[in-house]
Amino acid sequence: MTSPEILSYIAGFLDGDGCINLQIVRRKDYKLGYQIRPSVTFFQSTINRFLLEWLKSTLGVGFIRDRKDGVSEYAIVEVDSVLKVLSQLRPYVRLKTKQCDLTISVAQELSQSRRLAPGDFLELARKVDQFIDLNFSRKRSIRSDQVEGYLRAQQLLIP
Amino acid sequence: MTSPEILSYIAGFLDGDGCINLQIVRRKDYKLGYQIRPSVTFFQSTINRFLLEWLKSTLGVGFIRDRKDGVSEYAIVEVDSVLKVLSQLRPYVRLKTKQCDLTISVAQELSQSRRLAPGDFLELARKVDQFIDLNFSRKRSIRSDQVEGYLRAQQLLIP
Repeated sequence: MTSPEILSYIAGFLDGDGCINLQIVRRKDYKLGYQIRPSVTFFQSTINRFLLEWLKSTLGVGFIRDRKDGVSEYAIVEVDSVLKVLSQLRPYVRLKTKQCDLTISVAQELSQSRRLAPGDFLELARKVDQFIDLNFSRKRSIRSDQVEGYLRAQQLLIP
Repeated sequence: MTSPEILSYIAGFLDGDGCINLQIVRRKDYKLGYQIRPSVTFFQSTINRFLLEWLKSTLGVGFIRDRKDGVSEYAIVEVDSVLKVLSQLRPYVRLKTKQCDLTISVAQELSQSRRLAPGDFLELARKVDQFIDLNFSRKRSIRSDQVEGYLRAQQLLIP
């Protein structure tokens, strides 16, 4: 059990420098053509890698990757791991509360039914749209209308 | 008394997104020609100004300024305020420990004797040099050799 003090520190660090994300990713080998991917990521100069290692050993999930530009990334992407971490941190988060709540709610649905019906999947994808605006994403993100177009083209949606 | 949980959150936020700084500033009206200025600063998009306001009311010191580029700054610059805040946060800081220790030590000396002898002032300025390297400052910073040059030119240093 991680102490409230430690969780509170990590929540502060997440609010300051971390990233909660919810993305739609194209997957040609998936029946529904797309994956909804929740993630929690922390970035630090590789000089401060020890802090990412401490976070990883404290939270017990995720992976650290050293980028070539001198920045290291600690990323949690597995649905149940994201759910576990965000549920623990939620009571202490002060800034990224909406991102946290939306990601928990989507991750819960993804965790409960691994094979979502196309209609339910599209509904989740619409929640991801809300998220794109919350994070002020500048990158072109895949939105639910693209998923809907695909599902309709594949005749996977009951009109 | 701020709770350990709150202080721990703020330390995490400071490690993630805050800035502890120690600078030498030119002051033409000061006898020694320079000021050593410790500071703690937090930045956020003005949209998230509420978090800076919460920090300010929790720590009880400092000022918030809204910049024209949509970023708000919460800055603590008064020596005793910096000392109070960093001493409270120090047990919870994990990343900026060296910056914290060095700033506390310099702020303590500044606080104890408001009118430092030129030799003591120069010694403090040398501590600031160590700090410039810690923070990977890219901006041209004033270093102790410049202060020394000034003090010698003014014949304020006993050789």
